[in-house]
Amino acid sequence: MRICIIGSSGHYQYVLRGLHKDTRIVAIAPGSAGEEMTPLRKALKELDLHVREYEQYEKMIDIEKPDAVAINSFFGVNSKILIEMLQRKIHSFVEKPIAISFEDLNQIKSLYESVQKDVFFTAMFGLRYKAHFLTAKVLIDSGEIGKIRLLNTQKSYKLGKRHSFYTKRSTYGGTIPWVGIHAIDWINWFTGTKFLTVYATHSKIDNKDHGDLEMTALCHFVLDQEIFACVSIDYLRPEQALTHDDDRVRVVGTKGILEVTRGKVIVLDDKGEREVPLVAEKQIFSEFLSQIKGTGSCMVTPRDSILATEIALKARESADTGRVVEICQVL
Amino acid sequence: MRICIIGSSGHYQYVLRGLHKDTRIVAIAPGSAGEEMTPLRKALKELDLHVREYEQYEKMIDIEKPDAVAINSFFGVNSKILIEMLQRKIHSFVEKPIAISFEDLNQIKSLYESVQKDVFFTAMFGLRYKAHFLTAKVLIDSGEIGKIRLLNTQKSYKLGKRHSFYTKRSTYGGTIPWVGIHAIDWINWFTGTKFLTVYATHSKIDNKDHGDLEMTALCHFVLDQEIFACVSIDYLRPEQALTHDDDRVRVVGTKGILEVTRGKVIVLDDKGEREVPLVAEKQIFSEFLSQIKGTGSCMVTPRDSILATEIALKARESADTGRVVEICQVL
Repeated sequence: MRICIIGSSGHYQYVLRGLHKDTRIVAIAPGSAGEEMTPLRKALKELDLHVREYEQYEKMIDIEKPDAVAINSFFGVNSKILIEMLQRKIHSFVEKPIAISFEDLNQIKSLYESVQKDVFFTAMFGLRYKAHFLTAKVLIDSGEIGKIRLLNTQKSYKLGKRHSFYTKRSTYGGTIPWVGIHAIDWINWFTGTKFLTVYATHSKIDNKDHGDLEMTALCHFVLDQEIFACVSIDYLRPEQALTHDDDRVRVVGTKGILEVTRGKVIVLDDKGEREVPLVAEKQIFSEFLSQIKGTGSCMVTPRDSILATEIALKARESADTGRVVEICQVL
Repeated sequence: MRICIIGSSGHYQYVLRGLHKDTRIVAIAPGSAGEEMTPLRKALKELDLHVREYEQYEKMIDIEKPDAVAINSFFGVNSKILIEMLQRKIHSFVEKPIAISFEDLNQIKSLYESVQKDVFFTAMFGLRYKAHFLTAKVLIDSGEIGKIRLLNTQKSYKLGKRHSFYTKRSTYGGTIPWVGIHAIDWINWFTGTKFLTVYATHSKIDNKDHGDLEMTALCHFVLDQEIFACVSIDYLRPEQALTHDDDRVRVVGTKGILEVTRGKVIVLDDKGEREVPLVAEKQIFSEFLSQIKGTGSCMVTPRDSILATEIALKARESADTGRVVEICQVL
């Protein structure tokens, strides 16, 4: 299997850590004019991986004819690149959100419908594969906490000094689609239930000269069966904190409450409160490869990738307009 | 100081635990027809307090002429009793919410404006006085976490088997006004900032034959300066849990993040993460007595009591209608 990487602005590390023995990265290229490729170049060198480098990804694809690509350029162009790859029927491992506009997302949706027999793609929802999230999923699916009634989720990140493309809506997409989307994916994954409406707010105040970047956001979802879910997002995690992020989920069920926090899973039910031993971690790019090789299946599906993006864009629309927005989840 | 207690359906324990040496409970009476007075009667007996008992509180007030009353009957009638007491210029320590309809609340507001020189009242926001909440307030006021940008709050209760008056909106008022109001009060207290809008949802599903009682609710507030706050409420805390409630607040500021959880206060800022030693607990009814004796002031003011009730009713309105509701905070 021959892989090309387009861009160096997202989670290419998943690719480097998930390679199979029969798979190699053959070439890299920027996905946008002016995209700095040094981070990826350096990471490849550290792994002693020698690859060809192109100035234009289109040329790279023409010449290298890869089996699959990883797409992680400036967030605003990933959708365009994904569309090109799907048209060429090249399997794609793409940064989330898969689009930052409804126009591009709709184009991906209809295109995918016509090519899905020949090509696979998935968004980089790698957080699902962490041991604590996988453990939570196993417990929820086993009925440990009964029926889910309420979910509280949190994404808290350090801001640091972000690349200038984060400061423009047109290249960044917004904090709800970039950061909040993970929590949206957890909610979708844990509940398997239809999202009906969203009310959201976001604020750029105190963003330390980061232009359009929203520092805080709050989303309130209503799912089928009157399941409620909130997503709290901030870039205000102090720089001295031990980890970059503070991801949390609290899932309230009719038989118990499950919490994912600080890499641990805590269950409280009629047997009392306990920390649950974690199942083994998995790796998203490795699963992506298994899927396209036909030796396994990838937990994050194209449907999940489209859905989380659509819901994130609806939440952003709500935050931009101040209105409750309906989610016409047709998938 | 002579105190009468009306009703036995709320937090009369604050009164029993907050008495001054020069203050005594002289009599009790139900606030509603059919109200069971046994719990209060028993609690008084345990403290070896002997008081007169009346069948009608109006008669009790006429005869006993108390300096102050505590009002904690079925939630739907507390407002009516408060109005009567304010008209008689009797200081009142009243269950929250102080009203379960806008009509009653507005009557209290205008009545209070005309009598405020002669009479004081406060709602039973006793949770503020717990050591962990007082500690949080001290830290926030000292600027420890900078400007507040986002608050996540949680009220999680055991349901148990509730009295039948909890099962009707007309006597209970709703879960947002009964349970969520505490978190609304924390947000008001911590930020001192105007509430602008609320979007909320609530659900009766799986309420174990509790009629109108909402088992879950979620509120999303926008305050001035684009401060966002959410309140997550549920009655799904397992019966085996060590405590009745699981109250939490996470306050995200520009210089740090403060959390109140499990009776602890944790601060994360550029000095790292640490548990903060707690300041001493206080007692709300004791402060209420100091206020009316003129020897001190009560932290929970009539304004706070009206405000939290008004905001809770607006949140309930939003949840009932599905609309974003404006909060015309005029106080």
